Amino acid sequence: MSALERTVDASAAELAAVRPAGSDVDPRACAAAATLGFVSEPGDGVLGRLVAALGAIRTAELLLDDRPAAEVTGEAGEHGAAVSVHEVTAGLQRWRPRRDHAAFARGLAQAARVGARLVLPADPEWPAGVDDLGVHAPLTLWLRGDVASLTRRPSIALVGARAATGYGEHVAVEAAAGLVDRGFCIVSGGAYGIDGTAHRSALASGGTTVAFLAGGVDRFYPVGHEALLARIAETGAVVSEMPCGAAPTRWRFLQRNRLIAATAQATVVLEAGMRSGSLNTAGHAAALGRPLGAMPGPVTSPASAGCHRLLREFDAVCVTDAAQMAELVGAFGSPDAAGPEAGSTAPRAIELLTSDERRVLDALGVRRARTVTELATRSGLGTGAVLGALGALDATGLARRVDDGWVRLRAA
Amino acid sequence: MSALERTVDASAAELAAVRPAGSDVDPRACAAAATLGFVSEPGDGVLGRLVAALGAIRTAELLLDDRPAAEVTGEAGEHGAAVSVHEVTAGLQRWRPRRDHAAFARGLAQAARVGARLVLPADPEWPAGVDDLGVHAPLTLWLRGDVASLTRRPSIALVGARAATGYGEHVAVEAAAGLVDRGFCIVSGGAYGIDGTAHRSALASGGTTVAFLAGGVDRFYPVGHEALLARIAETGAVVSEMPCGAAPTRWRFLQRNRLIAATAQATVVLEAGMRSGSLNTAGHAAALGRPLGAMPGPVTSPASAGCHRLLREFDAVCVTDAAQMAELVGAFGSPDAAGPEAGSTAPRAIELLTSDERRVLDALGVRRARTVTELATRSGLGTGAVLGALGALDATGLARRVDDGWVRLRAA
Repeated sequence: MSALERTVDASAAELAAVRPAGSDVDPRACAAAATLGFVSEPGDGVLGRLVAALGAIRTAELLLDDRPAAEVTGEAGEHGAAVSVHEVTAGLQRWRPRRDHAAFARGLAQAARVGARLVLPADPEWPAGVDDLGVHAPLTLWLRGDVASLTRRPSIALVGARAATGYGEHVAVEAAAGLVDRGFCIVSGGAYGIDGTAHRSALASGGTTVAFLAGGVDRFYPVGHEALLARIAETGAVVSEMPCGAAPTRWRFLQRNRLIAATAQATVVLEAGMRSGSLNTAGHAAALGRPLGAMPGPVTSPASAGCHRLLREFDAVCVTDAAQMAELVGAFGSPDAAGPEAGSTAPRAIELLTSDERRVLDALGVRRARTVTELATRSGLGTGAVLGALGALDATGLARRVDDGWVRLRAA
Repeated sequence: MSALERTVDASAAELAAVRPAGSDVDPRACAAAATLGFVSEPGDGVLGRLVAALGAIRTAELLLDDRPAAEVTGEAGEHGAAVSVHEVTAGLQRWRPRRDHAAFARGLAQAARVGARLVLPADPEWPAGVDDLGVHAPLTLWLRGDVASLTRRPSIALVGARAATGYGEHVAVEAAAGLVDRGFCIVSGGAYGIDGTAHRSALASGGTTVAFLAGGVDRFYPVGHEALLARIAETGAVVSEMPCGAAPTRWRFLQRNRLIAATAQATVVLEAGMRSGSLNTAGHAAALGRPLGAMPGPVTSPASAGCHRLLREFDAVCVTDAAQMAELVGAFGSPDAAGPEAGSTAPRAIELLTSDERRVLDALGVRRARTVTELATRSGLGTGAVLGALGALDATGLARRVDDGWVRLRAA
């Protein structure tokens, strides 16, 4: 009996308890993915390449069974993985010290206790966008709330600084509410400041919102957002790739950001200083080729300096309202997503004038009527051109013929 | 004796009085250009094509001597002009009614009285940038002030709305002062609001500034800026392509904007609502391929909505300070123009860390020392990778070896 089979046997009940209802995924695949997620840090590309080549089950077997690095490398190479013995050796040195069956079991039990669910790439609830991360894609996701909320509707990530200003909070409220009105799910990081305001506004608008955490979903972080995250889980979801019991570290925060960027169809940074972590999320979105928007702010506000940098250096689209944010997705995804509110307002007639019409309009008086000859001299146009322009101005209600010539009408 | 020769004879003294000192340009060429400028509106492409083919002197002769349109067209065609009889007929209908020798002489006398100078494309003081307007380039420029101020140094156009807010005025003051510090001449339109603030700030910083007017330079417009424009003319210049006596019309304002965009090496819109005339200047800059910058502002301020539109739809560069504005020119013109202030600030060591170093840094404690084995487990890295990262962290002063392991040092 392999170590993986022992794990399946030992934790069958706990694993079944954390799987989405009705799933028929092989229990060995569940145990393997959970185990690999448990021993590795997020975004481990060597592990990702092994899993891509060998599958999670075989990778977990090789890892748990203490197979030598050369053997693992050879078998992976036969299946097309581009990994060196050096990389696999270093990888096994990372993963094997973390094999701790008791801790693994505690994590599963804790997940079951808080009602967390384990979602795998094979599940219909798996957000397809994260697969764009390639070998850096998560192997598992842990989720509290509605497992289908990640995939049921188009989503936009609204992110920004913890140190939000009143301006930033105002625009976050408006953005989230406007996007919920347009049918979007709001994805963010659950942090203080912009993230929290976007989640709150989405909830207040009756929308769906999803928070990605850096640590396990058993412990809502930050502590001051425990109630908010619990409310998010009631209708949307709180998600992490780390198992229950995992602490949020800086590395995990940075890697969590890639999941936000990959899950959402577009990312918008609402307010961010030069060192805001939300710029990291923006960088992931840009690297993934996802549409990236940035909301401008006063140049006198350091809290918007990061947004301006995204506009300058990262080719972010300048977005100033929810309709423009929806357009980010519309332009790449469904063309209808921007809704009828997006786009142009009706142009006023005066802005559609030809240059001749404009010059004749300038030459006209509001009170005193002028003849065509006078208008020709004043405008510097020939009489034929003046007559043509007057006809157009008459038709658009900007000029009128009177007894002794033409007068200008005030624009409606 | 042709009509042009009679004009030269009749106005020789007045023309000499308005020419830059030491010029040896043919008096007939001066009279011809002044005459053509007098009878036409700015940006008349048919006239521009005739002058390009036949020269100003011959074009003025044909126009003043009442030659039939077919003959003018034929002669222009022989010299490569792409003009139709229809266009020339309409052109002559525009220009000939404006032949008014008395008014022309009054304009010259008025120019001499106010100390205005007539600058021609052949003059060394002619701003080469306007030639990029092709057949829409001005035929003459009228100028009060220092005739060399247009060409002596690199220039940036700072433009914006008349209805400026306190925010807009603040950024205009900072932008103009910062660009003057970097050796730039500030070009603008002399209007209330952003334009006036930019001019004033340039003067207050001891810099050179140039104002382009829509009407003749004998009458400073707007009236409330008479004193300001007089001060601008003392060290810089007040410029128009219209002769003295010409009133500012809306058409001339729009055409004046093309001169601002063409004269300056770059154009920056500092604050502009959706209908601000400065967006027209921006459009000219974009059409000319000149670098275009826009200063963002609060999305809650309609006074910045035009700037945001430029960022969204016209590919304007987001600029937030004078250094970034100078870079607009630096990137296209002299690479030194941005000066030492431009570009990056010194990066902090912590931002240059590799992902391994970052993870080991996360795993370190400030107070309690941790062993390499502990750090390997906490960080999820192998011991070799941990040792490598510790070496780098030690070298950058972020970690230190102590008796029983390693501790994190607070970043400098």
